[in-house]
Amino acid sequence: MDTNKKTYILTGSSGSKLGVLDLIIGCLYRHECYAYEIHTFDDNDVERFFFRVEFHYIGDGEFSEESLRSQFADRAKAFDAEWDLRDLSIPDKLVILVSKYDHCLEDILHRYRTGAFNIEIPAIISNHPDLKALADWHNIPYYHLPITEETKLQQEAEVWEIIQRVDADLVVLARYMQVLSDDLCRKLHGRAINIHHSLLPGFKGAKPYHQAYEKGVKLVGATAHYVSKDLDEGPIITQLVEPVDHTYTPEGLIAKGRDTERLALVRAIKLHVERRCFLNGSKTVVFPGH
Amino acid sequence: MDTNKKTYILTGSSGSKLGVLDLIIGCLYRHECYAYEIHTFDDNDVERFFFRVEFHYIGDGEFSEESLRSQFADRAKAFDAEWDLRDLSIPDKLVILVSKYDHCLEDILHRYRTGAFNIEIPAIISNHPDLKALADWHNIPYYHLPITEETKLQQEAEVWEIIQRVDADLVVLARYMQVLSDDLCRKLHGRAINIHHSLLPGFKGAKPYHQAYEKGVKLVGATAHYVSKDLDEGPIITQLVEPVDHTYTPEGLIAKGRDTERLALVRAIKLHVERRCFLNGSKTVVFPGH
Amino acid sequence: MDTNKKTYILTGSSGSKLGVLDLIIGCLYRHECYAYEIHTFDDNDVERFFFRVEFHYIGDGEFSEESLRSQFADRAKAFDAEWDLRDLSIPDKLVILVSKYDHCLEDILHRYRTGAFNIEIPAIISNHPDLKALADWHNIPYYHLPITEETKLQQEAEVWEIIQRVDADLVVLARYMQVLSDDLCRKLHGRAINIHHSLLPGFKGAKPYHQAYEKGVKLVGATAHYVSKDLDEGPIITQLVEPVDHTYTPEGLIAKGRDTERLALVRAIKLHVERRCFLNGSKTVVFPGH
Amino acid sequence: MDTNKKTYILTGSSGSKLGVLDLIIGCLYRHECYAYEIHTFDDNDVERFFFRVEFHYIGDGEFSEESLRSQFADRAKAFDAEWDLRDLSIPDKLVILVSKYDHCLEDILHRYRTGAFNIEIPAIISNHPDLKALADWHNIPYYHLPITEETKLQQEAEVWEIIQRVDADLVVLARYMQVLSDDLCRKLHGRAINIHHSLLPGFKGAKPYHQAYEKGVKLVGATAHYVSKDLDEGPIITQLVEPVDHTYTPEGLIAKGRDTERLALVRAIKLHVERRCFLNGSKTVVFPGH
Repeated sequence: MDTNKKTYILTGSSGSKLGVLDLIIGCLYRHECYAYEIHTFDDNDVERFFFRVEFHYIGDGEFSEESLRSQFADRAKAFDAEWDLRDLSIPDKLVILVSKYDHCLEDILHRYRTGAFNIEIPAIISNHPDLKALADWHNIPYYHLPITEETKLQQEAEVWEIIQRVDADLVVLARYMQVLSDDLCRKLHGRAINIHHSLLPGFKGAKPYHQAYEKGVKLVGATAHYVSKDLDEGPIITQLVEPVDHTYTPEGLIAKGRDTERLALVRAIKLHVERRCFLNGSKTVVFPGH
Repeated sequence: MDTNKKTYILTGSSGSKLGVLDLIIGCLYRHECYAYEIHTFDDNDVERFFFRVEFHYIGDGEFSEESLRSQFADRAKAFDAEWDLRDLSIPDKLVILVSKYDHCLEDILHRYRTGAFNIEIPAIISNHPDLKALADWHNIPYYHLPITEETKLQQEAEVWEIIQRVDADLVVLARYMQVLSDDLCRKLHGRAINIHHSLLPGFKGAKPYHQAYEKGVKLVGATAHYVSKDLDEGPIITQLVEPVDHTYTPEGLIAKGRDTERLALVRAIKLHVERRCFLNGSKTVVFPGH
Repeated sequence: MDTNKKTYILTGSSGSKLGVLDLIIGCLYRHECYAYEIHTFDDNDVERFFFRVEFHYIGDGEFSEESLRSQFADRAKAFDAEWDLRDLSIPDKLVILVSKYDHCLEDILHRYRTGAFNIEIPAIISNHPDLKALADWHNIPYYHLPITEETKLQQEAEVWEIIQRVDADLVVLARYMQVLSDDLCRKLHGRAINIHHSLLPGFKGAKPYHQAYEKGVKLVGATAHYVSKDLDEGPIITQLVEPVDHTYTPEGLIAKGRDTERLALVRAIKLHVERRCFLNGSKTVVFPGH
Repeated sequence: MDTNKKTYILTGSSGSKLGVLDLIIGCLYRHECYAYEIHTFDDNDVERFFFRVEFHYIGDGEFSEESLRSQFADRAKAFDAEWDLRDLSIPDKLVILVSKYDHCLEDILHRYRTGAFNIEIPAIISNHPDLKALADWHNIPYYHLPITEETKLQQEAEVWEIIQRVDADLVVLARYMQVLSDDLCRKLHGRAINIHHSLLPGFKGAKPYHQAYEKGVKLVGATAHYVSKDLDEGPIITQLVEPVDHTYTPEGLIAKGRDTERLALVRAIKLHVERRCFLNGSKTVVFPGH
C-alpha cells in the first residue's frame, strides 16, 4: 500500500443487523477504498454494532469523499446508524483546562511538540496563573480565568465562549480542580476527558490518595474518563496502576500516582483523537491503539 | 554463611524509641547469631516501630533459643514491644475453607505439593462436597460441613472445633462463599486470610465481576486481606490486576480475574507464613518477599 | 443475536488487494451469516492481509457450510488466499509433551477440567514416569517414552505415531526438556507451541534463570512460541514478565518465573485454539483474545 | 519522630561477619541517632554484606557527625568495610549528557523543577544544539560540544573537564547517542547511569527497536544501568516493559518504548541519589525506594 495516500476513518454504530457490514465494505470497495484495519464490536446487551474502518483510496483518479458519504448515508438509515467519516490528516483541536499541577499538561505538551499526536492546541485555560510560562514556551494562548464562588458561572461562560470560538474538538481536564456545572457537562457530552487520580470506582471525590493511604491499598492508579454530570462517574477510557506498599506516605502515593495519571490521560487522548473510543451508555467501546 | 544452619525469625513491633534496635541486634550478637536480613518500618502516625530479623546461629556450640528469649523479653518491656521468635523449619499449619470453586485451592495445593511454601495442611473444610476428590488426591482430610440458614452457627462451631483440634496457625478462605460471624472473625483475628475478587475498596460485596461489567472498568483485580468483622474491609496484604476491555462479558471478567485471585492469595499466604506481614490497625505492614 | 447459534470462524491471509474483504463479507452476507467480530491486519512489509471473522448463521433455514466454502473458494484464488473455515463447537485435540515439571501441565489440565478452553486431550507424553498420577487423575492416557542418546530418534518416531493416531490439532511442549529433531519440527510446523523460560531473545538455551541470575536482571519472564528448527527462535505468541531484585537466588528466579511460564503458555494455547494466531514468516499475527 | 531533624544515611558493604551490624547500630545508639529505616543484603556468593541505614539525631544537644564517623571508621576496618555517611539535605549534582531526543531529559527536568528529587543540575552537555532552549528555560547551562570522528577524544576531554569543574556526583546519559571511551568509563565508574532502549540482555547495540520489530516480540522495554566499558553490559538498576503486538511498526515500538525509557531512567536516578544502589561486581544491589 502506498502510505502517502490520505488516511480516512469511518466510525459509527448501528443496530445489530445483518447487512450493515456488507454495506460498509461494499461502499468502500465500489469507491476503490482499501480498508486495511477494521474493528467491530457487537454489544449483545443493547443490540448495537460498533465499527471503525481505516482506509486509503487506491484508485487512479480523485477520491470523491462526497460520493462515498452520500451513498453510505442513504443506505445506513435502514440500520439505525450513527456514523462519521473523517480525513485523519486534519488535526483535532484540543482545549486544555488546568489548575496548578503541571505533570499532565507537560506530558501532553511534550507529545504535542514532538508530533506524537495529530492535534492543535488553540487554548489552555486555567483558574490560576501558574502555568502560563509553560504555555508561553509552547506558543499556546493561555487564558487565566480565576474562580470564586460568586463568579463560577460567569467563569464557565467564558470557558465555553473560548471552546466555541476556537471550535474545539476535544476538551481535556488535565487535573483541573473544579467541578463543571451540569449544563457545561451536557454541552461537552462525549468530547471532554477528565483524569481522576484513583482507580475508579474506588476513591471518588476529593483527596483520593489520602483515602488510599487510610485504606492501606497496595496499588494506586488513575482513570481517564469522559466527563458526565455525575462527578467521577463518566464512561471510563483508560486505567493504569502502580504497586505501592506501607512505606508510602500520602505524598509518596501522590508522586507515584502521577506516573499513572499522565500516562492514562495521554493514552486516552490519543485513542479519542484516532477515533477509537465510542460512548456506549455509561460505558465505552475502545478499540485497541498504541 | 552455612545455609544448613537453622533459620530463625524475630518479628515484632515496639514504640518508636531509640534503643530498641540496639537491643535486638545486641542480643543477637551476644548469642552469636548472624542477622543477614533485616527489615524495619517506623510508622510516624502511630509511633510504632516494626521489625523482622532473619538470622542463623553461627557459634561453635549449641544455640540456646531460651537464653535469647529470656534476655530479649526482659529488656523489650521498656519499649512496649510485642514480639515473636520462630524457628522457620517448623511448618505452619493451614486450614483451608472452600466452597465449590477450585482455582485458588488447586494453586495452593500445587505449591504445597511442590514445596513452594513450608506448610502442612491438616484440614480442608467445605460447605459442599465437590472438592473432596482434589483433597483426597493430596491425602488431606476433607470435612464436608453443609450450611443452611438454621445450621450456620452450628456449622461454624464445627469449623472452629477443627481449627482448634489441628492447632491451625492460619486459616485461608480460598473463595469460601460464606460470611463468618463476628465471633469467629474475632477468634481468628490476624490469622485468617480471605481473597476478595475485586480491587478493594471498589466492588465490595456480592458479584464484584458483574459490578465491574456494569461499570465498564478497564482493569479487574483481586485483594487478599486479613479477615475482619466488617465484610471486605480487613487489612489488605496483596492486590493484583489484569487489563480488560469492552469485549469481556461478566463470564470473561470472572475467568480473567481468577488469574489474579489465585496469585494474590498464594502470595499473601507465603508472605504471612514467612512472617513478613504485620497488622497495623486497619492496615498492614508487609516486608518484601518473593 | 441468538447465542445458541453455532459459532464459525473464517481465518486466513491473502495478498494486500482491494476486493478481498468485500469478497469475505459479501459471501457471508449472501449466506445470511452475521459477522459480529472481525479482525484484520495488513502487513505492509510483505503485502499480506490477515483476517479473522467470527459469525453465526441467522437465517431461518439450514446453514450450508458447503455452499459458503465453495463460493468463497472459487473467488479467493484471485487474491492468493490461504484460508480456513471452522465450526468452533468442535474441540481441538491437544497432545501435551512434558518431562518432570508439572506447573505448566497442571495449569493446562485445570483449565481443561473447568472448561476454560474448548479442547480434548487424547494424550500426554513424557520421557519420565513422574506425572502419570496427574494424568490418571484427569483420565488422560499417559505415554511414558524414555529417551537415551541412542533411542532419541526411535522415541521421536513413537511420539509422532501417537500424534498422528490421535489426530492432534496442536502439540504443546509444556516444559518438555528435549530438543525436537529438525524433521519433527518441520512436521509440526505451525501447530506446536513451546514455552521457553526466559524473555526471548534474552537467555536462549539451557538454564535461562541461572543466566538471568548471573546478569542481575530486574525482570524475569517467559515466552510461548511456535516450535521451529532453530532452538528458541520460533515465532513468538505471548510473553509475560515479573519484577525481581538482587535478593532472588537462581531458585527464587525459577519459582517466580514459573508464574509467568504457565500463564504465557495457557494464554498462547487459548489464542491458538480460538484461531487468533497466524504465522507470518518468523513472526506472528495475534488478534486479541481474552 | 520529629521529621524536621536532618536525615542522614549510612551506606556500605563489609565482609559477611558477625558483629558488623552490632557495630553500626551500636554506634548510632551511642550517638543518640534513631535508625528508622534499615536495609541489608547478604550476598552468599561473594560473602559481602550490604547495608543502608537512614537515621535522625534525636538527642538534645548538637549532633557530632565527626564523632560518629571517627568511632565507626576505627572499628569498621576489622570488617573490611567500605562505607559512606551522607547528610541527605545536601543535593547531588547531576550532569546530563544528551543528543537530540528530549523525552528523557524533559522528564528529569520536570521532576527536578517540581522537587521530586533532591538534585542540582549544573550542566547539560550535548553533541547537538537542539535541546538548548529546553535547558535555557530551566536556567541550566548548556554546553554544545559537537563530535566528529577526529575530535571525539578532544570532545570527551571537554566533557570530563566540565564534570570535574562542577564537581558532579552523578553523570546521566539521557539517550546520549555516543559511546564513551574506556578511559572515561573508568573515571565515571559507579557514578554514570545510561538508559538503553531495550530489555537487556536482549537487543544490545544499535537500533534495538528495529531489532525488536524483526524479532516480533510481544513486550518492549528499557534498562537503566551503570556505565561500564563493555557497551550495554553495565550493572542493571531498573527495567520496565510495555506490551506490544504485531500492529506496531518500528516507529510505534519507539514511541511506546519511550514511556519505559524515561520512567526507568528517572527511577534509577532517584534510587541512586537516595543511596539505594550498590555495585556488586557486574550486578547491583538496589534497596527498594519509591
